[in-house]
Amino acid sequence: MRASYALGVDVGGTRIASGLVDRKGRVVREAKRPTPSAGPFAVVDAVIEAVQEAWSGTHPSEVCGVGVGLPAQIDFIRQSVEYCTNLPLAGVDMRSLILSRVKHEVTLDNDGHCAALGEHRFGAAKGVRDFLMITLGTGVGGGMFVGGQPFRGARGLGGEVGHMPVRSDGAICPCGAAGHLEAYVGRIALGRRGQEAARTFAGSMLRDLAGGDPDAVTGIHVVEAAVAGDEVARGILADAGDVLGEALVGLVNLLNPQLVVVGGGTGEAAGFVVERAAQVMRGSALAGRRDVRVVQAELGNDAGVLGAAALALDEYDAREGLHR
Amino acid sequence: MRASYALGVDVGGTRIASGLVDRKGRVVREAKRPTPSAGPFAVVDAVIEAVQEAWSGTHPSEVCGVGVGLPAQIDFIRQSVEYCTNLPLAGVDMRSLILSRVKHEVTLDNDGHCAALGEHRFGAAKGVRDFLMITLGTGVGGGMFVGGQPFRGARGLGGEVGHMPVRSDGAICPCGAAGHLEAYVGRIALGRRGQEAARTFAGSMLRDLAGGDPDAVTGIHVVEAAVAGDEVARGILADAGDVLGEALVGLVNLLNPQLVVVGGGTGEAAGFVVERAAQVMRGSALAGRRDVRVVQAELGNDAGVLGAAALALDEYDAREGLHR
Repeated sequence: MRASYALGVDVGGTRIASGLVDRKGRVVREAKRPTPSAGPFAVVDAVIEAVQEAWSGTHPSEVCGVGVGLPAQIDFIRQSVEYCTNLPLAGVDMRSLILSRVKHEVTLDNDGHCAALGEHRFGAAKGVRDFLMITLGTGVGGGMFVGGQPFRGARGLGGEVGHMPVRSDGAICPCGAAGHLEAYVGRIALGRRGQEAARTFAGSMLRDLAGGDPDAVTGIHVVEAAVAGDEVARGILADAGDVLGEALVGLVNLLNPQLVVVGGGTGEAAGFVVERAAQVMRGSALAGRRDVRVVQAELGNDAGVLGAAALALDEYDAREGLHR
Repeated sequence: MRASYALGVDVGGTRIASGLVDRKGRVVREAKRPTPSAGPFAVVDAVIEAVQEAWSGTHPSEVCGVGVGLPAQIDFIRQSVEYCTNLPLAGVDMRSLILSRVKHEVTLDNDGHCAALGEHRFGAAKGVRDFLMITLGTGVGGGMFVGGQPFRGARGLGGEVGHMPVRSDGAICPCGAAGHLEAYVGRIALGRRGQEAARTFAGSMLRDLAGGDPDAVTGIHVVEAAVAGDEVARGILADAGDVLGEALVGLVNLLNPQLVVVGGGTGEAAGFVVERAAQVMRGSALAGRRDVRVVQAELGNDAGVLGAAALALDEYDAREGLHR
């Protein structure tokens, strides 16, 4: 019998969210924890608490497994955390630690890959065999499907859309290299542009949103101001859309996807960025690719939990030999 | 019984080469024709002549089929020529035209994809499940393997490594867009750099190779001069290696391949370009990817024919359900 639910856990830099998710992508029960800063074992403990709270009252046989999405580079075959910029999890055997306490299958994956899995199972990429997912957030990440299967690269480290060079004027990326997409479109880059704008444009609401201090403007403020109609903030996001569009030219030329889905934590930004990026792409991509659809992700605030749940469902169905 | 041979045809801008190839990758018999300029049907006729000459005396049942590599964008599912810059083949039903005359299975593919298939079956990527092929020639193309299978994208148009933006200083690519890899590393770009150098550096042999006329220097002259030890020409190729390395940063971050193979018509250039490109990549790629091997292609002058033959063998083995 097919298990009816999956447990998805989205581990973020500030918050851990877990949810019991049914096969239609409904979050039946949720639990949240702040991400502890007291070291790896505190993080693992918080994940386990969030899992137990979200599935309390549900019989284990009804749950297919636990999927965990991490802002980290995961060797998918070994299920090891290789690199993790914002959390002290590199080298920590997360899977075994969680498994030993929750007594259920546990699968780890990069959060960008989980976003792709979620949109494929429940969202904008349902039934699409070849697509590219781009997640805009603190970092810029992503994932891919090739021929109906998730693509992770040789070790599982693939999908790092944010770390493709797009410009040679040398903006420094959080990874240390220059000119990467993330250095223009990531939340830190948006915040930096917002700070400049708050100093320069008296009419912009950016300064007010940051309590009067231009240096306190963040990428989130830029998105908030754009949503509220601030033209300066919209200009910043339009510029980000231009750079994303340049990256998309290379991506659709290289990968020839049917669809590009743009989502991620800076979700509301996507609305301002996506159309602009698609325009740039259509202007410069090779013929035959310009009609690729570029759409916003559909899963919204629960995308992280739903993506991690999709991971658990995919792994379960693969183990059981089930086809959807 | 497994057919022992495949017929590979490499259609280039100036030359059509066909070869009867055995399963070990030996070219048993070859035929060459200049590429006619009298229109699509003349090209098709030349392909058919080259095929018939190369397999004359071999019983049809010993030949698994005909693979044709084209400098064109091929919709692989429909087997249609979608776009072709240098030859008048777009929209021509090459496959049916050849099939009706040679009475044997015919499969078309992009020449970059064929190069990947050839290196996978006979060359530097034997047994490698996830690798990226980059071909340096008049254009810059390529192909990929993902999980042991050729990756072509949704319609078969994928693999256009040369048309990824790498620099924003606006060098115009033959495709019309700016800053693409091909605009720095393609043979036309190398020729342009060679012409400048021939005017500027009296000591370089470039001018002599071009019969004393700096404007007559081509990319091929640059490679010849580099092979002969000319430092100016080697500098041009080193610069090309730098730009290729920047592109590789994005490619290994995105794709996490086990291996990158560099080959193509400017084959001898690869030696000067590859090591430099690999250095740049190792300096800037994300951790966990810097150890990816970057090697020269192994198939050399016969790469086009062997790649097209590999295509025919792959298709035959898939039809017959054979595993290698």
